[in-house]
Amino acid sequence: MRHLPGGENFSQQVPAGDDRERMVCDECGWVHYVNPKIVVGAVCRHGDKVLLCRRAIEPRRGFWTIPAGFMEERETSAEGAAREAWEEAGVELRMGPLLAVYNIPRISQVQLIYKAELAAPGFEAGPESLEVALFDFDEIPWDELAFPSVRWALDQVREVWDRDDFATFGNPPGETGRMTPP
Amino acid sequence: MRHLPGGENFSQQVPAGDDRERMVCDECGWVHYVNPKIVVGAVCRHGDKVLLCRRAIEPRRGFWTIPAGFMEERETSAEGAAREAWEEAGVELRMGPLLAVYNIPRISQVQLIYKAELAAPGFEAGPESLEVALFDFDEIPWDELAFPSVRWALDQVREVWDRDDFATFGNPPGETGRMTPP
Ligand SMILES: [Zn+2]
Ligand SMILES: [Zn+2]
Repeated sequence: MRHLPGGENFSQQVPAGDDRERMVCDECGWVHYVNPKIVVGAVCRHGDKVLLCRRAIEPRRGFWTIPAGFMEERETSAEGAAREAWEEAGVELRMGPLLAVYNIPRISQVQLIYKAELAAPGFEAGPESLEVALFDFDEIPWDELAFPSVRWALDQVREVWDRDDFATFGNPPGETGRMTPP
Repeated sequence: MRHLPGGENFSQQVPAGDDRERMVCDECGWVHYVNPKIVVGAVCRHGDKVLLCRRAIEPRRGFWTIPAGFMEERETSAEGAAREAWEEAGVELRMGPLLAVYNIPRISQVQLIYKAELAAPGFEAGPESLEVALFDFDEIPWDELAFPSVRWALDQVREVWDRDDFATFGNPPGETGRMTPP
């Protein structure tokens, strides 16, 4: 009745009623289903500026990102995006529409990114951020962004900066989220 | 080095670097992270009709649904929606835009539902379907739909039937996906 995912008593089997191989415990039949993970985040606007956080943690420590992180259980995606903005940047948000849904299948990740505004002008770096700052678009450190999807979201939000009635974006054409080392 | 999620050697602890309680193995420190799950699906149109599948499996065996199921690893959400339509209804799709993103936080589920068209007229019930059929809107068995979100998607797709340039829908106002038994 004990099992260790990835351990020697696990093997690839097709469970009853399933149609593909999973890691199954040879001793008790427990199936280790692995699911894609959801990242939730927000482009946080304040006037003409956008809020970015410099990451205090790996991966990509020292690089800039929008507030985002793994969605937790029993929250909505918008609640998760607001939670991440609070945790990483100390800001409360007026949440707008869903800006984008990005797929990064290489790492089995779906990102749900909202368009939001700061509900008040203050901010403060949380434990996962080295610093937090507001940037005009021409001041954004484009070469020091943490992930490709941060650039996608910033480029796309700019197209719909002054309106909320837009079609949710996806990955830019041809983009899969592959990291090119700096 | 062995662990059984939910077993007697697991307890709620806050792992190092984390900020909330998780199920942690007392013996080896393995953290059992539980993540929200992604359901991918499609409203499949053919002319003025929409394709529905009568479920052969629980939950809600015998009730009607759009093709949908859990997203797998290393696929995109659109690929997953196409895969489910193939598995459950034997159809190939011309995938359109993202119709809706639904949150069902009670069961930690996010649903990504696409607007699609049949690429060819045929269909065939897969192993998880009792039958598959095309319905005019006034023939849809509204009282025999499997899940609240099936109704949401059908209501919403009707609003944007003839266009693809629309803002992705969310949950209808006030709707949380709670099941009311039939
Ligand atoms: Zn086992
Ligand atoms: Zn253990």
